[in-house]
Amino acid sequence: MARRKGAGGKDPRALFRTMVDTLVKQAKAGRNPSLDIPVRSLSNVNFNEKRSIIELGKEKQKRYLFNVAHARKFMQTFLVASGCRTLLEEGKTTSIRDLYYMLKHTIQGVKEETFEDQNESDPIIEDLEVMLGCLREELHLFASNRGALVGTLTLRDSGDVIDARHQGSGGWSIPSIVEEDVIQFRKCEAKFILLVEKDAVWRRLNEDKFWKKHKCILMTGQGMTPRGVRRLLYRMHNELNLPVYVFVDNDPWGYYIYSVIKQGSINLAFESMRMAVPKARFIGLSAYDRKTFDLPGNVTIQLNKQDTARAKQLLNYPWFQSKAWQREIKHMLKEKVKLELEALSKKGISFVTESYLPEKIEGRKWLQ
Amino acid sequence: MARRKGAGGKDPRALFRTMVDTLVKQAKAGRNPSLDIPVRSLSNVNFNEKRSIIELGKEKQKRYLFNVAHARKFMQTFLVASGCRTLLEEGKTTSIRDLYYMLKHTIQGVKEETFEDQNESDPIIEDLEVMLGCLREELHLFASNRGALVGTLTLRDSGDVIDARHQGSGGWSIPSIVEEDVIQFRKCEAKFILLVEKDAVWRRLNEDKFWKKHKCILMTGQGMTPRGVRRLLYRMHNELNLPVYVFVDNDPWGYYIYSVIKQGSINLAFESMRMAVPKARFIGLSAYDRKTFDLPGNVTIQLNKQDTARAKQLLNYPWFQSKAWQREIKHMLKEKVKLELEALSKKGISFVTESYLPEKIEGRKWLQ
Repeated sequence: MARRKGAGGKDPRALFRTMVDTLVKQAKAGRNPSLDIPVRSLSNVNFNEKRSIIELGKEKQKRYLFNVAHARKFMQTFLVASGCRTLLEEGKTTSIRDLYYMLKHTIQGVKEETFEDQNESDPIIEDLEVMLGCLREELHLFASNRGALVGTLTLRDSGDVIDARHQGSGGWSIPSIVEEDVIQFRKCEAKFILLVEKDAVWRRLNEDKFWKKHKCILMTGQGMTPRGVRRLLYRMHNELNLPVYVFVDNDPWGYYIYSVIKQGSINLAFESMRMAVPKARFIGLSAYDRKTFDLPGNVTIQLNKQDTARAKQLLNYPWFQSKAWQREIKHMLKEKVKLELEALSKKGISFVTESYLPEKIEGRKWLQ
Repeated sequence: MARRKGAGGKDPRALFRTMVDTLVKQAKAGRNPSLDIPVRSLSNVNFNEKRSIIELGKEKQKRYLFNVAHARKFMQTFLVASGCRTLLEEGKTTSIRDLYYMLKHTIQGVKEETFEDQNESDPIIEDLEVMLGCLREELHLFASNRGALVGTLTLRDSGDVIDARHQGSGGWSIPSIVEEDVIQFRKCEAKFILLVEKDAVWRRLNEDKFWKKHKCILMTGQGMTPRGVRRLLYRMHNELNLPVYVFVDNDPWGYYIYSVIKQGSINLAFESMRMAVPKARFIGLSAYDRKTFDLPGNVTIQLNKQDTARAKQLLNYPWFQSKAWQREIKHMLKEKVKLELEALSKKGISFVTESYLPEKIEGRKWLQ
């Protein structure tokens, strides 16, 4: 697979270059230098039915140098760009908090600070991402490590060979930067990927060596799937040609976690094409599982008002319009209860490993 | 080192056996069966000056079977014990949430549930820990994985060989169960352990291969140090004979993180002797670092009311009574500012790796 750096396969440094060149050209022509920044709001987001992902629209806003309301942000945009350029030049990566500290200083001659606090630098990073069509990870900025992986796969991480078949009880910790210059895939015998919402259930499956018996890659995002995990999932799905199963609590939050993996999120709409896996399969928990697997009534939890409201919102999402999904969500609303992954343990510690998942996967009982 | 299982080196299953035997004996003697549970409150906690750790006192409370106020908890205590015994028998581990689900059921003949929610089962687990003198991890219960490790060390985790010299950018993910039957140490060339509060700074140091140049083990607890990390730190300090350096933000929270590693915490006082590292060295950030390392004023953050109150509390802790510590904390209060680890980046991305830490460690500039 071709190496992809920034929009159109370009190195982000080339994109910074263009940014500056445009500015110089505008100034020389006697025009007010400006940047075109795509608008990141609900009004500029739409669902691409054909590709089945959430996408950012074409709406843009101008940011001018000579405009009292824009000048500060204009300066900050170039500061952040210059910080990222330094990171790229030096081959180093850093956190968004660290970048803020790197760039914070008092502007000479005036008392003003470049950034008052991190709330000023974070949105500028998003501006740059969407303007350049780059992930922040490609600009060498990272978030905390979150998520773990084991399975029948060997990969390289920063030059080290990681055999995911021998990662002990903790697994390989998934970094937030998983681009091709950091992570490369090697030998893979996996037939599918199973992403588990909860760390505790992931540990159960790892201890039972589920991934060994069923030849798969076992991942957890520990709650809402972090960007690194989503990007890695996308890469493995596309480069290794593996189906993705998503295993979440049966509540509106679980459905939503699945939907973000599948279609992308509204917040990060500009990244959907690099992260969304429209063919991801929802393996459970389903609102019907309680009956199918004969779980006792006392393991369920009543839906609260927020749950009900959220489930009703989900019913209206364009990507939940299939008959099967409408039936699934409506059944939860009808039953008025939710169900956590751990509820399966009522049937035995390893019920999830030995019965639930094999039955669902082999029986092709998933939603898409 | 001898294998340590529960109090006095016993297998927890033997302790469960004793629990039951005592009960049967009491019943046969016509007495009201009861359990003796050490009290876990501030009144029953004291600082052992000689060992320099926080310890639980001798105060105990009785829990009777035939007592309307105790009967429910009595039943729950035996349910949790029986659940843990099953885990031990089957050689499986699980989360405390999972255990709750495993044990939750409707009591036959009445409508009552064994546990209404997890808030009922969690304190019972703590009761058992303190009563048996076992860590919950020894009872095969775990918390989420949190924390990462790289460095010049090889270890075994659940039978897999983990070479911490080749763990890529993410590092080895530290499990919450790190007892000797799961984790064993092998080849170690490290001269010390550096525990970094923040993941982002840990990543900076890992990317710069600090651990390679300085032959050390680099760990992060990602904020408040989790139990698994504390226990592993204790084991490495004692079994591998390595000094421990703690690297935290310069704020009362940072001092507190250090103090928990060093002396233990009030909440987990019964575990101090298995977790506390009284010789741990505080390497920074110190309230004096701003001047020593010539950091600009605009990277500091004003102390808020909570910070000031907390710092004043710390001044009264018996383990912060040395001249050096009183001076340190008072200097923070005088300067009225705190400082995050990331503030060092103002002097350059790798300032922390190339200048700050070597200067502090080689110059023996730490507090104890």
